[in-house]
Amino acid sequence: MKPAVCLLSGGLDSTTCLAWAIKQGMDCYALSFDYGQRHRAELQSAERAAKALGAIEHKVEKLDLRLFGGSALTADIDVPKHASVDQLGQGIPITYVPARNTIFLAVALAYAEVLGASDIVIGVNAIDYSGYPDCRPEFIQAFEAMANLATKAAIEGGVRTKIHTPLSTFNKAGIVQLAHSLGVDFSLTHSCYDPAPNGGACGRCDSCLLRRKGFEEAGIPDPLPYPQ
Amino acid sequence: MKPAVCLLSGGLDSTTCLAWAIKQGMDCYALSFDYGQRHRAELQSAERAAKALGAIEHKVEKLDLRLFGGSALTADIDVPKHASVDQLGQGIPITYVPARNTIFLAVALAYAEVLGASDIVIGVNAIDYSGYPDCRPEFIQAFEAMANLATKAAIEGGVRTKIHTPLSTFNKAGIVQLAHSLGVDFSLTHSCYDPAPNGGACGRCDSCLLRRKGFEEAGIPDPLPYPQ
Repeated sequence: MKPAVCLLSGGLDSTTCLAWAIKQGMDCYALSFDYGQRHRAELQSAERAAKALGAIEHKVEKLDLRLFGGSALTADIDVPKHASVDQLGQGIPITYVPARNTIFLAVALAYAEVLGASDIVIGVNAIDYSGYPDCRPEFIQAFEAMANLATKAAIEGGVRTKIHTPLSTFNKAGIVQLAHSLGVDFSLTHSCYDPAPNGGACGRCDSCLLRRKGFEEAGIPDPLPYPQ
Repeated sequence: MKPAVCLLSGGLDSTTCLAWAIKQGMDCYALSFDYGQRHRAELQSAERAAKALGAIEHKVEKLDLRLFGGSALTADIDVPKHASVDQLGQGIPITYVPARNTIFLAVALAYAEVLGASDIVIGVNAIDYSGYPDCRPEFIQAFEAMANLATKAAIEGGVRTKIHTPLSTFNKAGIVQLAHSLGVDFSLTHSCYDPAPNGGACGRCDSCLLRRKGFEEAGIPDPLPYPQ
C-alpha cells in the first residue's frame, strides 16, 4: 500500500492528476477545500470525480478565505471576462488567491502525516496557466524542502515528503490528451471561476478560456456546454 | 505604518510576541485559529490579549484539524500528565499536531499578502519546548524561503516576507521576564492543553509544566491557579 494525498478541486487538472496517481498504483486520499470560493460548484465535481475514479477517501476541509479576501474568487470583485484566449492579460490576474496553494499543501501535509503517506499530488502547471506564483516549479521545490523539516514523520520517522506535479511539463492540450488516455470523464470536471447559479460554465473567464483552448488544440470535444 | 501579522494562540509565548511586536512599532493584525483544539478556551484569552495589548484587528480562522486527528489535541487521545517537569518524555509527544505551524504560517501569509505586510510574528522557541519539529529555526527559515516564492506580493510587488521569532533564543524563564518587562498581564494568558470545563489549567500537562517552570525560574508569580 502506497498512500498518497491528492489535492482535488474538481477541475480538469486535479482530476487528471487523481487519475494519473491511481494509474501509478497509489492509494489516493483526495482532499478538497470549501474555502469560500465563488465557484463552490467545483466541489460537486470533486465529489463525483473522487468516487468515479476510485479514491479511497475524499475529505473536504472547510476554511474561510473570504476572511481575508483580496481575490475575485474570494471577495466581491468581478471575475475578468475575455472574448478569446489571446486577450488574457499580462501579469498575475485578480483571480489569484493569496497563498492558496501554500495553504492547500500545508493542510495536505497534515493529512499525509496522519496517513503515514510520503506522497502529495497537485495539479499545478506553469505553461498554459494564469501566472500564479504558487504554481511554479521553484515554489513547489521550496515547499517540499520546508515540508521535510516540518513534521514528526520527517524528523523521527524518516518519511521524506515528495510533492508530485505530474502536469508540470504539459500544456493544456497535453493535459486533455493525458486525461483522455487515462479515461477521465470530462463531463465530471468543472473549471469555470464564475459559474451560473445552475453551475454552468461562463466560457469566458481565464479558466474557461484556457480549458477551451486545450480541448481545441487537442482535437477532443469538451462535453461541457458554453453560452453562445 | 508597518503592518504585521501576529499569530496569537492566547498562550504565554504568542501573547509576549504580540507585546514585543507592538513595542517594535508594528501595527499588529492578530490571527488565531479555531481548529478543533481540545483547549479551545485559549481563544478567549487570545481575544482578551488582542484587545488589551492594542492589536489593530483580530481575526479567527476556523478550520477543522479533527478531520485528520493524529494528536492528543485534535483527537480522542489522552493528554499526558506528569508530576513534574523532569518527567517530560523523550521524543516528540502525542500533543504534536501534524503540520500545525505550517498551516498557521500559510494562512498568516495569505493575511499578510492581503494587508501588504511583509512581517509575520510567531512565538516559537526551541529551548524549553516540547520538541515539535515546526518550532525549530531550520523549519522557520525554510518556510520563509518558500514564502518568498509563493505570493504575488513577492513576485510582482517585491515584498520580502520576514518571519520573526523573537522568542527563539529565550528559555521559558526568559520569556516570562521579557513578558514582564513588556507589561504583559499574565492573567490574560492560557497555556493548558487540557483545561477543566471552566477553562482552568490542569497544571500537569507539558504546556502547564513548562510554564510553571518558567515562572518559578524567573522568580515571578504565575497568577493562574493550579489544582493542588
